[in-house]
Amino acid sequence: VRFRAFSSVKPLVPPLNFAIVAPGVYRSGYPGKKNFPFLNKLGLKSILYLCPEPYVGDNAQFIGDQTLSLLHFPIHGNKEPFTHIPAATLRAALVALLDSRNHPLLIHCNKGKHRTGCLVGCLRKIQKWTVTSIFDEYQRFAGTKARILDQQFIEMFDTRELVYLLEHRPQWL
Amino acid sequence: VRFRAFSSVKPLVPPLNFAIVAPGVYRSGYPGKKNFPFLNKLGLKSILYLCPEPYVGDNAQFIGDQTLSLLHFPIHGNKEPFTHIPAATLRAALVALLDSRNHPLLIHCNKGKHRTGCLVGCLRKIQKWTVTSIFDEYQRFAGTKARILDQQFIEMFDTRELVYLLEHRPQWL
Repeated sequence: VRFRAFSSVKPLVPPLNFAIVAPGVYRSGYPGKKNFPFLNKLGLKSILYLCPEPYVGDNAQFIGDQTLSLLHFPIHGNKEPFTHIPAATLRAALVALLDSRNHPLLIHCNKGKHRTGCLVGCLRKIQKWTVTSIFDEYQRFAGTKARILDQQFIEMFDTRELVYLLEHRPQWL
Repeated sequence: VRFRAFSSVKPLVPPLNFAIVAPGVYRSGYPGKKNFPFLNKLGLKSILYLCPEPYVGDNAQFIGDQTLSLLHFPIHGNKEPFTHIPAATLRAALVALLDSRNHPLLIHCNKGKHRTGCLVGCLRKIQKWTVTSIFDEYQRFAGTKARILDQQFIEMFDTRELVYLLEHRPQWL
């Protein structure tokens, strides 16, 4: 069977800063109504949400309609001089992220740059990526908005303090 | 069983500009010897290589050792005023990319920015992504080296001219 790809279908709109982190793990900025048809195609099981604000409106309805689990880890982003990402909350988010029963999963914050970047950066440390390649990926998404505090957080994050469920860890780890 | 992630293991070095394009499809710049332990973990079946130069040295040996298929589509990148990516070669590369029998697969050129960016951009058109999000992704990898000619190529690429094997297309399409 040979197939011609016709372009008559409605375009799909990925959320801002959308990308695949690992098999079954996606990242993005805050998704909105126009992204729902795109997200539907991912067959998501959960949303890992990193902002302090509650999940409301269209998005709350979307997770209800799709019966998605909302894994909510409220984090304020790093901001000089007094706001720092709480390591314990980030570790809890990582434990949820490393539980393959939650996959396919979408990580998001507001812009998909800082809080999401920190969480993905810490995941890369667990995956044993070099710091150079972790920062390169972080900067790809943060662009001119890259924060030294975020990179410092990632560099100092101690993966030995992370305790997660071995039996449910993703295959790619 | 609970697991502690110890950081005593040797770090893994992803190739420059490494990322996941879709399940079973990866992209990067030219990989070298120090990236082989990282690439081994991906369980690759083929390498889709987009430069005109033959595959030599460590890399030729790597694909021999791992019995990977080399899918070689020699392309010169877009350069003003006279060098243009040949649409027919790019279509042929897309047909190989859309054949899941070749997955897991790594697309690479030299820097993972331009030729790889064009191929991935055309794939996104087949996936019905909006042009805005295709260019956003292109620029994430090309950065300050983004080429208008590449973006023009992607915009003008006619997906209706692409004929590929329906029965072997990836599940995510």
